[in-house]
Order: sequence, then C-alpha cells, then structure tokens
Amino acid sequence: MEFMLQLLFTMAVLFVVSRIGSVAVSRFGLPGLIGEIVMGVIIANVTIGDWSLFSFLDITIPGPGQEMSEGSHVYTVIKVFSELGVIFLLFTVGLETNVKDLLGSGRAAMLAAVLGVVLPFVAGLAIIMATDGNMNHALFMGAAMVATSVGITARIIKDMRLIDTREARIIIAAAVIDDVLGMIVLAIVKGVAGSGEISITDIITITLQAVVFVSGIIFVCKFIVPRIYNFFQRRHDAAVNAGKVPYSANKLVFAIIVCLIMAAFAEFIGLAAIIGSFLAGMLFAEHAWEWGLEQKMESITTFFISFFFLNVGFQVDIHAMTDVTIIIITLVIIAVALVTKFVGCGFGAKMGDKNLDKDGRNIIGVGMMPRGEVGIIVASIGLSSGAMSSELYAVVVLMSVATTIIAPPILSKLFRKKYKEEYTILGEDRI
Amino acid sequence: MEFMLQLLFTMAVLFVVSRIGSVAVSRFGLPGLIGEIVMGVIIANVTIGDWSLFSFLDITIPGPGQEMSEGSHVYTVIKVFSELGVIFLLFTVGLETNVKDLLGSGRAAMLAAVLGVVLPFVAGLAIIMATDGNMNHALFMGAAMVATSVGITARIIKDMRLIDTREARIIIAAAVIDDVLGMIVLAIVKGVAGSGEISITDIITITLQAVVFVSGIIFVCKFIVPRIYNFFQRRHDAAVNAGKVPYSANKLVFAIIVCLIMAAFAEFIGLAAIIGSFLAGMLFAEHAWEWGLEQKMESITTFFISFFFLNVGFQVDIHAMTDVTIIIITLVIIAVALVTKFVGCGFGAKMGDKNLDKDGRNIIGVGMMPRGEVGIIVASIGLSSGAMSSELYAVVVLMSVATTIIAPPILSKLFRKKYKEEYTILGEDRI
Repeated sequence: MEFMLQLLFTMAVLFVVSRIGSVAVSRFGLPGLIGEIVMGVIIANVTIGDWSLFSFLDITIPGPGQEMSEGSHVYTVIKVFSELGVIFLLFTVGLETNVKDLLGSGRAAMLAAVLGVVLPFVAGLAIIMATDGNMNHALFMGAAMVATSVGITARIIKDMRLIDTREARIIIAAAVIDDVLGMIVLAIVKGVAGSGEISITDIITITLQAVVFVSGIIFVCKFIVPRIYNFFQRRHDAAVNAGKVPYSANKLVFAIIVCLIMAAFAEFIGLAAIIGSFLAGMLFAEHAWEWGLEQKMESITTFFISFFFLNVGFQVDIHAMTDVTIIIITLVIIAVALVTKFVGCGFGAKMGDKNLDKDGRNIIGVGMMPRGEVGIIVASIGLSSGAMSSELYAVVVLMSVATTIIAPPILSKLFRKKYKEEYTILGEDRI
Repeated sequence: MEFMLQLLFTMAVLFVVSRIGSVAVSRFGLPGLIGEIVMGVIIANVTIGDWSLFSFLDITIPGPGQEMSEGSHVYTVIKVFSELGVIFLLFTVGLETNVKDLLGSGRAAMLAAVLGVVLPFVAGLAIIMATDGNMNHALFMGAAMVATSVGITARIIKDMRLIDTREARIIIAAAVIDDVLGMIVLAIVKGVAGSGEISITDIITITLQAVVFVSGIIFVCKFIVPRIYNFFQRRHDAAVNAGKVPYSANKLVFAIIVCLIMAAFAEFIGLAAIIGSFLAGMLFAEHAWEWGLEQKMESITTFFISFFFLNVGFQVDIHAMTDVTIIIITLVIIAVALVTKFVGCGFGAKMGDKNLDKDGRNIIGVGMMPRGEVGIIVASIGLSSGAMSSELYAVVVLMSVATTIIAPPILSKLFRKKYKEEYTILGEDRI
C-alpha cells in the first residue's frame, strides 16, 4: 500500500499548508480562500535548489490540453477532490437559492443583478477581443467577470448587524439572481466555445437550451417539488397514525445522488458539471434547513474544497506575470471588474427603487464587487477545456483576489457612514 | 473532461446501487452495510451475456498482489474513497472511545473483553493452521474474528430502551475495550505477517511496540490533552475578557489533519492506517461532542464508506464458494465465531460480576457476537498486503455477515425474556 501512504501523507501536508494560508489571511479580515490560493502559488513556483514540495510529494501536473490521467496518480486524486469540492460548493450555493425568494425579489434587486451581469460580461469580452483577439478567451473572461461571490459581503453585513437594512436585502437578493444568471452565461459560453465555429444560430440555440434548462428546474422547484414532498409527508403521517414506524430515508445520501446525477447530466449535454449541481441544490433549497442538509454538505465540502483553492494556485505561473502586456491587462481587468459592478449594480438598484439615496446606491455597487471563488471556477473550466490560456487564467485569479480584497474595507466605511446614527444609539462603534 | 464525466456517472450509479441494497435489508431490521456488501457481490459476479456493470462503468480491479494503480483510473479513485472511508470510520469509532470511561470500566467489562478477544483469536488461528497451514492466513483469520461491531447491538438496546440495564452498560464498555484490544491484535498480526520469518523475539518486539504505541496514546489522552485544551481555553477566555474577538480554529480541519497524519504515521511504521486514525479519534473523544465533531465526521464518512462496503463485495468471488472444503471451513468459522464470543464474553462478565444471573450472562455473550465491518476491514488489510488468500477473505466476509444477522433476533428475545416485567409495566410490548 505504498500509494495510500504517499497519498495520506500528501493530503496531510496539503491540508496543513492550506490551513496556514487560510489562518494567516483571516488575521487581516480576508476570506481564507485567498490564503489557500496564495499557498498554492507558492508551492507550485518556489524551488529550493533542486528541491520542491511538488517533487517531494510526487505531484506532477499535466500540461495544458493534456488529459487528467497524464499527471501522477497522487495528483489525479487531488484533482478529483478539487473537482468534487467545486461541485459540492455550488450545490451548497444552490441550497441557499430558494426559488420562492428568487421569484419574489423586488425590482431593485432584479435590475441590479441583470445590469451587474451584462456590463462586466460585455466589458470583459470587449477588452480581450481588443487585445488578445481570441473569441473563446474573450467569452470566458466575460463569464468569469460576471459572478458575484456574496459570501464576504454577507459576512460584513452580519458582523455589522445590518441584515435588516434595505441595502443588505437588495444585495442578498441580487446576488442570488446573479448566481442563476451567471450559470446561464457560463452555459452559453461553454456551449459556444465548444462548438468551434461560432454562428448566430448556434448562439441562439445554446442560449435557448441554457434558459430552458434553468427555467425548467425553477418550474420543477416551484410546482413539482412541493407535490412530491407533500406526497411523502402524507405517507409518513399515515404510517405514524397507523402505529407503524415510518420509513425514513437518508436525506444526505439522497441529496448527494441527485447532485451527482445532475452534475453528470449537465456535463454530458455539454454544460458544466457545476451548473447541474447548482440546480440540484436549488431543488433541495426549500427543505435544506429542516433536513440539516446545509450543515452536512458543509462538512463534506470543507474536506474537498481546500484542494480546489490550492490547485487554483498550482496553475498560476508567476513567470508569466513578468510580461508587461499581461500586467497591463491585469490592471485594466481589475479596474473594469470593479467599475462595471459598481455602475451596473448601483445604478440598476437605483433604477428599480427611486427612494434609494446616493449612499445606498454606492453600498450596493461596492457590496456586489467581490468575485471570490465563482469567477475562478469559471476560468478553470475554460482552462481545462482548452478554451482559456494559462496567462488569462492567472489574470482571472488575480482579478478575483483583488476585487475580494478591495471591496470589504470600502463597504464597511460606506455602511458606517450611512448607519452612523444607528451605531451611536446602540453604542456599537467598534466596527 | 471525459474522465470526470465517467467518474461522476460511476459514483452516482454506485451510490444508487448501494442505497438500494441498504434500504432492502433494513426492511428486515438488518444493518445497511450487509445490503451494500451483497450488492457489491452481485455487481462483481453477475454478467448478462457479454455485458456487466463493471465493463459499463469502466471498473477494472487489479488482481491479488498487484499495485492499486494497475486498475482503471476510475477504480483507483473508488478504491481511494473506500480506504478513506475506513480510515474516517475508525476515526469516528475512536471519537466514541473515551479514555476516562475506558479506564473506569468495571471488572466485568474488562474480563468480558479480554476473554472475548483471546478465545476467538486462538480458535481462528488454530482452525486455519489445522486446515490451510499458512501462518499468515491463520494470523489474519484470528485477528478478523476478534473485533466486535457493537453498532447493531447498541441500536437494539436503544430501540428497546434498555440503556440503563446492567447488561447494556457491560456490553458497551466491553465493546470499547474490545476495539482497543482488537487494534493491538491487528498491529501484532500485521507486523508478524510482514516480517516473513517468524521468531519469538519478533513477536515479542512487535507486541511491545503495539502495546507501547496504544498505551502511549492513552497516556496522552489522559494527561497531555487536558493540559493543551486548558491552555487554549485560558487563552480564549483571556481574549474575551480583554474585549478582543478570540481566534477560533476550524476544529473539523484540525481533526482531519491529526487523523491523516496519525494514519500515515501508523502505516509508515508498519501498523495499519486505521490504527492511527482510531487512536487519533481517541485524542478528540473528550471534546468530540462539544465541538460537533461526531456529526461532522459522520457526514464525511457517509460519503466515503458506501464505496468500502461495495468494494468488499467486489472482492468476493462466488465461484470459489462452490468448493466443498471452503463451504465447510466457512460453516465451522461461523459456528466458532459465535461460540467463542458467547463463551468468552458471557463467562468473562460472569467472572467479573458474581451477581449476574444466567440470562444476563447470555445477553452479554450474544450481544458481543456481531462482527460487522471491523472484521472485514482487518481481512481486507490482509488481502491487499498479500497475507490473506481471496478464499479466506470471502470466508471472513460471510462470517461477519452471518454473525451480524444471527445475533440480533436472539438478543432481542433474551432481552424480552429478562425484562418482560418492565415492558408490561410501561405498556410496551411491541418489541
């Protein structure tokens, strides 16, 4: 069992390394994933003489365009863990996407989400078309700039106890809609990039497919799932009334099965696996809390996801970052990523809710800026399908990290400005 | 990403299959793992014409003595999942093994455990030495017959609400001691079988090693862990008192790291990985509940462990079971497995507690009979290190399944006989 020993050792080392990164950055109030990515970059790029942690751990990463199985066996397993981590992560995001809330969210959130998706997508697409000229690269850059990662903003809102403010409610609702739109954009981009030659007919077909798939699931959530649930609830009650011990299914295993089947199905029809697992999560969103699914999936995701963030870092070649063109593109992309969300979401919300003042508009614009993990996930799908260059992949990683670092301090300053009085009244001024 | 699609699909199919097996047998009051093993046997042995689920799912299992990497990539991942499942399963068993309770358990439990380990081990060893003659085979058979799986007995006790009876307390305590002794036996057997030539000096050295390792961990649990815990608790309290936000570590990740390191270390020094993870679990036992570790690890184990039980079935060649000698050995082993636990544990408990009546003695003897998963885990360690033949592996699987099926109905009959009055008083007679 030489291999298992090697694997256990490698897993332990990688866990320790990612934890060190995570704890280090969280001292500065940053989300742990940034530290994990940075540790991944360090591991992959630092060598001491002939020695590197990679050779020590027997990690060989297959080159761009190579099959996963071309790497070492240890790396194959790490890569599988990282893919499963992302699939389960998007499943838990889906678990938090309740269709009822989604359909009931106001005009302000809806407009903030739509404009906050369209602007970054178009801008990202245009910049890469103008510089690099490759349509596939441009499509994936656009898609990677779309997705808001609301986790960090939500934590600030929670820490500042501002969950009941109008801005907080709009941000949370807009982020949920943003996730769904982001999945549709990814589906379209992946379909278009996969089809080689790009025609208007193709784009329309793929867009229709993606929209039908996503709205089909929303329909199922709204009309079919409650019926199924009620059916089993009645059977359960009938069994209890008849004095029998009711059959109780293992909900976690059931949820995992549905998640895997939908992920495989989405991958099979040419969408990304994460789209399937995200939509699978939505199917369970209504009862996720009651069944304890979120907590249980969180434990499983915790196990797998660190490998993903490390692996994100593994793929970043810092030597590419010495190229002046790439540095300029990176800075432009970061600036545009910040501005398009600020304008799209801020003014979108203002259009939907005339009573929103300037501070409120700014809060929403800044709150929607962080891209976090989802942009990186999109880019890594592009990278492994060959539709994204490794240079632009590194740009996306830096853009995600930068937006996630820049937004939080501005956001808490804006919140403090607007809600100063509330804090003074409550005697809370340590924020 | 052809490979991920194949893998997701295979995982989904295997989850569905194992769930069907689990639900089917649980209708008869049997533990789900029996159904999962049976489904594994069916998948591996049933072909429809040229078609088999294995070829459909691209599962190729390496032959005996071959490296894990000789199988298909999909199987490598399944096998890794199954190994991790067992490692985490034994970690959770360790989490339930509180050293304080262990050291404070009474004479009855102690004697029941010791005799219940010595008798099956000697009998198993003797039978295989007499028939097969291979010392390694005999050692692993003895070790596989040692471990009690108390899960099924505990469930009966819980369902019958008899947790406060003297017999229930002795069984639970004896099973915990039994686990620790079982790990020592496994360590010795693995060490002796691995060293080729067997000398008395080797056996003594290895036994000392195993005893020192296990008692070292027990010492750490008793004297070092509380100090470490108190140190961090004081730091935490000091931070709170100083008005700072105390740093709070992610306990789950910390526990996983310790588990992986100790599993790798145990494997490295020639013990089994599960011995390391079991002892790692013991380190956290005191605070497992407080930190929610048991629940969190259960979710992770749920994900992995089904692959182990399926894989147990995969390795059972039913064609070998047509050999008359093997059938006779199987029946003898099953009978001896039942009798040795009945006598060893029953009379051991009686020796330790003179007030125990005949019914109580029988209850303890029968309650300790089920071998469940641990015997199979021991046998599969023997199989993959080449120290166990695949015929005898199948015998162990059948022995584990048989003891787990036979004991429960007898146990509930005995409990009902002894505690009839309690039930009549409570008006509970549906058991």
